[in-house]
Amino acid sequence: MKVAVIPTADAVTKESVVNKSVVMFDILRASSTISTALANGCKEVIPVVEVEDAFAVAKTLSENTFIIGGERGALKVPGFHLGNSPLEYTADVVSGKTVILTTTNGTKATSRAAAGASQVFIGSLLNISALARRIMEQGKDVVLVCAGTRGKFSLDDTLAAGMMVRELVQLWRNRPDAPASTIQVAEQNKPGVVYLDEVPVISGHALVLEDAAVAALRLAEAYLDNPLRGLYDCLHGQKLAQLGFAADLAYCAQVDILDVVPVYQDGKIIIER
Amino acid sequence: MKVAVIPTADAVTKESVVNKSVVMFDILRASSTISTALANGCKEVIPVVEVEDAFAVAKTLSENTFIIGGERGALKVPGFHLGNSPLEYTADVVSGKTVILTTTNGTKATSRAAAGASQVFIGSLLNISALARRIMEQGKDVVLVCAGTRGKFSLDDTLAAGMMVRELVQLWRNRPDAPASTIQVAEQNKPGVVYLDEVPVISGHALVLEDAAVAALRLAEAYLDNPLRGLYDCLHGQKLAQLGFAADLAYCAQVDILDVVPVYQDGKIIIER
Repeated sequence: MKVAVIPTADAVTKESVVNKSVVMFDILRASSTISTALANGCKEVIPVVEVEDAFAVAKTLSENTFIIGGERGALKVPGFHLGNSPLEYTADVVSGKTVILTTTNGTKATSRAAAGASQVFIGSLLNISALARRIMEQGKDVVLVCAGTRGKFSLDDTLAAGMMVRELVQLWRNRPDAPASTIQVAEQNKPGVVYLDEVPVISGHALVLEDAAVAALRLAEAYLDNPLRGLYDCLHGQKLAQLGFAADLAYCAQVDILDVVPVYQDGKIIIER
Repeated sequence: MKVAVIPTADAVTKESVVNKSVVMFDILRASSTISTALANGCKEVIPVVEVEDAFAVAKTLSENTFIIGGERGALKVPGFHLGNSPLEYTADVVSGKTVILTTTNGTKATSRAAAGASQVFIGSLLNISALARRIMEQGKDVVLVCAGTRGKFSLDDTLAAGMMVRELVQLWRNRPDAPASTIQVAEQNKPGVVYLDEVPVISGHALVLEDAAVAALRLAEAYLDNPLRGLYDCLHGQKLAQLGFAADLAYCAQVDILDVVPVYQDGKIIIER
């Protein structure tokens, strides 16, 4: 089982995701908002790329059955019910509803990841363990896609991807059939036995971390005691805090408060049961 | 002064390097070999992209004034004097000579970085402090280019870039005119005051680390006590070790054993005096 990390949505190619489990991270704030809305009982989230698309989708739905949310420049779009703050998506507001969501980075990342992948999950710190268990059950090679911020590497998403790598390593280590030596690369301090590019790795026989996955793991370890610090070491996190969204950062930095596995299927994100 | 990190040579654009100080890292092994050859008294290193180019350049030079070196698939090219092991480039062999060098990743990274940059330096762990001092004296925005391995993110180069970020932060902190608060992003645990994309940062008034520079710094901190472990956590490092180049890894993992600043000018790499 190989673990890859892709640093920005723009770097996703069809080849990199085909037949793999993909997890999309845009933790500030789209993927945290999606996980929260679903955990609070919303029926489904429909991610759309453009603001006009959101209104167009709304027109196809019955009154009072949907919520339109999202942001441009981190702020609520005029005419929308909600912005992109996960704290707005309470059970009172979203339970039983369809949420139509458009965000700057996350929506695009999801649709790019969806082209060819076996399955696309939506990842955040909030639900990292639930997702890691699901990925491990599936046993396929996994690609962790960091949405990034306006095409650039973003610390927050890579921190979350690293937390996922860490969970996968721990789950792998706890498998009854997996001796410690089958975790390659990250757990070795001597010449390795797996060349990722040259030797076929039999899925299920080794957990292989690509270099970018090892680097993400080290980043997660650096902020393990205080993920919120990571969000403040990040330019996008700083910008959100300055705009008045410090409470969102504190919320999104929480690890494993939600037990949901959001999955993207046929243009909608639902909870996998 | 902004500090950016570019994860692979392919991601270098003219816009990203124009008028900036660029440092190219391909520490396993091209940039370690170049630094070593120059420290051991070679006159200049001429990097070329293709094997044929190396022989063509050699034809223009007088007999016994040059050494042809480099690798394909990490191994010495037939007809070359040397491979790409820094340990081969001893004073006995290279002193006073021109070294013509072609390597798989590093040569391309250097030429891409050279297009538009103010200056291009060649970086390795071996000479990280000497380079950081030079970069800081220059005072320009700096772009740390990781060559990567066959177009992919490579842990070794990013580790070295992170060591450079760490040196720059330390040098900045020791400036008599720089209060601690002027180091942005990496050194803060609360809302920041600089938005890199939106507010002009006056060079010399703040050291601003882009997200990728913060991530590289965290990676360097993770391996600070044992950089060699980082090289073995890296697939390219493992491959080199398996091919018999473990001594090269041990050599390239050494921090600050050379006091040279290799600079790329007009197609040649020389020591900056």
